[in-house]
Amino acid sequence: MLKLGILGLGTVGSGVVKILEKNAENIKNKVGTEVKIIKILVNNLDKERDIEIDKNLLTDNAEDIINNPEIDIVVELIGGEQPAYDYIMRSIENGKSIVTANKLVIAKYGKRIFRKADENDAQVCYEGSVAGGLPIIRPLQNSLAANRIEKIYGILNGTTNYILTDMSKNKKDFDESLKNAQDLGFAEADPSSDIDGHDAAYKITILSSLAFERFVDVRDVYVEGIREIKSTDLELAHEMGYVIKLLAIAKNGNDGVDIRVHPAFIPEDHPIAMINGTYNCVYLHGDAVGQVMSTARGAGQMPTGSAVTADIIQVAKDINYNQREVQRMDSFLESNVTKIDEIENSFYLRLEVEDKPGVMAHIAKIFGDNNVSLASVLQKQKDNPVVPLVFITHHVKEKDLEKSLNEIKELDDVIEIKSVIRVENDI
Amino acid sequence: MLKLGILGLGTVGSGVVKILEKNAENIKNKVGTEVKIIKILVNNLDKERDIEIDKNLLTDNAEDIINNPEIDIVVELIGGEQPAYDYIMRSIENGKSIVTANKLVIAKYGKRIFRKADENDAQVCYEGSVAGGLPIIRPLQNSLAANRIEKIYGILNGTTNYILTDMSKNKKDFDESLKNAQDLGFAEADPSSDIDGHDAAYKITILSSLAFERFVDVRDVYVEGIREIKSTDLELAHEMGYVIKLLAIAKNGNDGVDIRVHPAFIPEDHPIAMINGTYNCVYLHGDAVGQVMSTARGAGQMPTGSAVTADIIQVAKDINYNQREVQRMDSFLESNVTKIDEIENSFYLRLEVEDKPGVMAHIAKIFGDNNVSLASVLQKQKDNPVVPLVFITHHVKEKDLEKSLNEIKELDDVIEIKSVIRVENDI
Repeated sequence: MLKLGILGLGTVGSGVVKILEKNAENIKNKVGTEVKIIKILVNNLDKERDIEIDKNLLTDNAEDIINNPEIDIVVELIGGEQPAYDYIMRSIENGKSIVTANKLVIAKYGKRIFRKADENDAQVCYEGSVAGGLPIIRPLQNSLAANRIEKIYGILNGTTNYILTDMSKNKKDFDESLKNAQDLGFAEADPSSDIDGHDAAYKITILSSLAFERFVDVRDVYVEGIREIKSTDLELAHEMGYVIKLLAIAKNGNDGVDIRVHPAFIPEDHPIAMINGTYNCVYLHGDAVGQVMSTARGAGQMPTGSAVTADIIQVAKDINYNQREVQRMDSFLESNVTKIDEIENSFYLRLEVEDKPGVMAHIAKIFGDNNVSLASVLQKQKDNPVVPLVFITHHVKEKDLEKSLNEIKELDDVIEIKSVIRVENDI
Repeated sequence: MLKLGILGLGTVGSGVVKILEKNAENIKNKVGTEVKIIKILVNNLDKERDIEIDKNLLTDNAEDIINNPEIDIVVELIGGEQPAYDYIMRSIENGKSIVTANKLVIAKYGKRIFRKADENDAQVCYEGSVAGGLPIIRPLQNSLAANRIEKIYGILNGTTNYILTDMSKNKKDFDESLKNAQDLGFAEADPSSDIDGHDAAYKITILSSLAFERFVDVRDVYVEGIREIKSTDLELAHEMGYVIKLLAIAKNGNDGVDIRVHPAFIPEDHPIAMINGTYNCVYLHGDAVGQVMSTARGAGQMPTGSAVTADIIQVAKDINYNQREVQRMDSFLESNVTKIDEIENSFYLRLEVEDKPGVMAHIAKIFGDNNVSLASVLQKQKDNPVVPLVFITHHVKEKDLEKSLNEIKELDDVIEIKSVIRVENDI
């Protein structure tokens, strides 16, 4: 018998308990012995829970798990930085293997955690940390191991994908869709980590380090969320043959890794454009395999529970058969993140200008002087003196675009630069 | 250093040689030691090849590999039943681990091969046997291991998917699209294994055994190919909001496994309907994870080479670190395949009838008498006395449908039953 301690009995923790119970017989067959939860850390011992659980399993003292010599595997499902990181490191020091869904801790401290695990002959598995039920960590570690992965595009956050889908399909504003997502349990009371893009940034950092075998500092990743997306932009995108997604991007370059999270226009016939609602996807390109895309629900009790339990099965099987999965990360390079200023992108720009002769000429001259060349211009007629003006640029350096926008802002005829969104045409 | 012997230097074999060479440094890092090809079995030592290869590596005697005590891993890429099966079994007896892309041998003799490997402490990996570069064998073995998988739908043959896409997009006949596929190298000179569905049947059998943990006899799998699909059917499908795909289906039932390969109408807004050209996809449903779909190129030198090389890396790493991946298959059940007669399906039927009063009434009566209820009827007007009549049925038992079609065939007004294609509405 193998013994588990679970840190945290929230949404995912309860899912893991359910799956371990429901599929116990099958899991026993796969592992070769029974897998049993012997302790679960909770905040409140007396809280009413939506799963039946033996009260004797519960503890509010983490030491009952971390320092419990009976426990083989610690399943960390508290989330956040501390005390999760501390619990993981101390459990490893005590010779326990770790299964976690904590993207923040893996993205930020992965390297230290993996080294500590190596020193202590422990395993660390984290399939649940990226894209919920979608198998991607292990496929990068094994099925795709023969490839040099060149780029990864992902929709890695279900909350924002739900909001953007809802805004687009039902012509809603951001605030209305966010509230809807909160009512349905797809967004948290404090939704900032999701909607500001940080959640996706942790996830793409984890994928990029595995795929490119380069560690980067997650704090260097450029992050932009979806608060500023207007339903007008979604409508205009649709008119021009695009959808808007919160895209996580990682490209393997010679000098560094181009890794960033921001809203992006994507051609509407691209497979990624079809991933709607709370679904996540990962779309990657390897030198041998070509394009691979996978999609599944990116969050939630059962999908993430599925990934975490799969890791538990793998680690339990390895312990039972005296094996240890070797993941060689000692050859991974420390790598820079390419500065966003230096990256070339195509842009969608929406301006509000006064309907006067000459305004277009003024704007076009500024773009020309700053090497910004235009792919298309759309002027919407309106029955008032303020008109929206929409541009899509060819590839330009971000700093050249920024310089021209600063100059355009100063023009008398320009009322406001309403939206600046990157366009990913060569995805 | 770990030493490989490769059986077969055709398309995939050459791909593996290229990848091992191109990514040698990276593969060495992953494995922890160099992986080196020391012998390659070929038919003709003097044949001109499109890759540069040291002639001293080539042999036309399989024993130089099977009985070579230096060789750690045998990579079987001959394909077909014999001598591939014999070479695999004898290599295992000699203590060598196997990497293969041979779907026929794994589908037909998997159980014996895995048992033999267990007895000899050898590993057998076969990611390349299903859907080329698409990671699916290992994800079923590990990332999805916590699930009870309920059903799998796949487009598992790139040749037929290319032909159906070409027929549909360019309004071509089957023969013309087949020739086109052959000219482009997407279909073989003898294309029967692909277009008659046998290739897909081997693959879905392999997936079903892993996913449901039940071995079935591949000879019991119902198989129907795409030779009889007419461009008229593709046009009518489109008119009714469907596409036609060669679908591989496996559903886990209480009494047996419903497993079959046949052309099917699929709603055109379903993700599977969007998989075109030589792409493959696997779409599955697990009790915890929900729906997961993956897509990638399903064949070809580099995609399949990617999968085979990933297996080589995994096995080499395990040998180097004195590990052995345990895949417990001893609890797998022997299972029946549900007879196609007993399965309920919805059907598309296209008849040619004489344009006379009463013909519809006659047909409708026969359907009614046999419990076949109709979901929709489409009668195409034509300027001649022969008119096409199209039905889509609700779910009916296959044997009830067959009985009514036999009766309808005998009607004087019915000239011919042109097409009978299953409709998968609840995919």
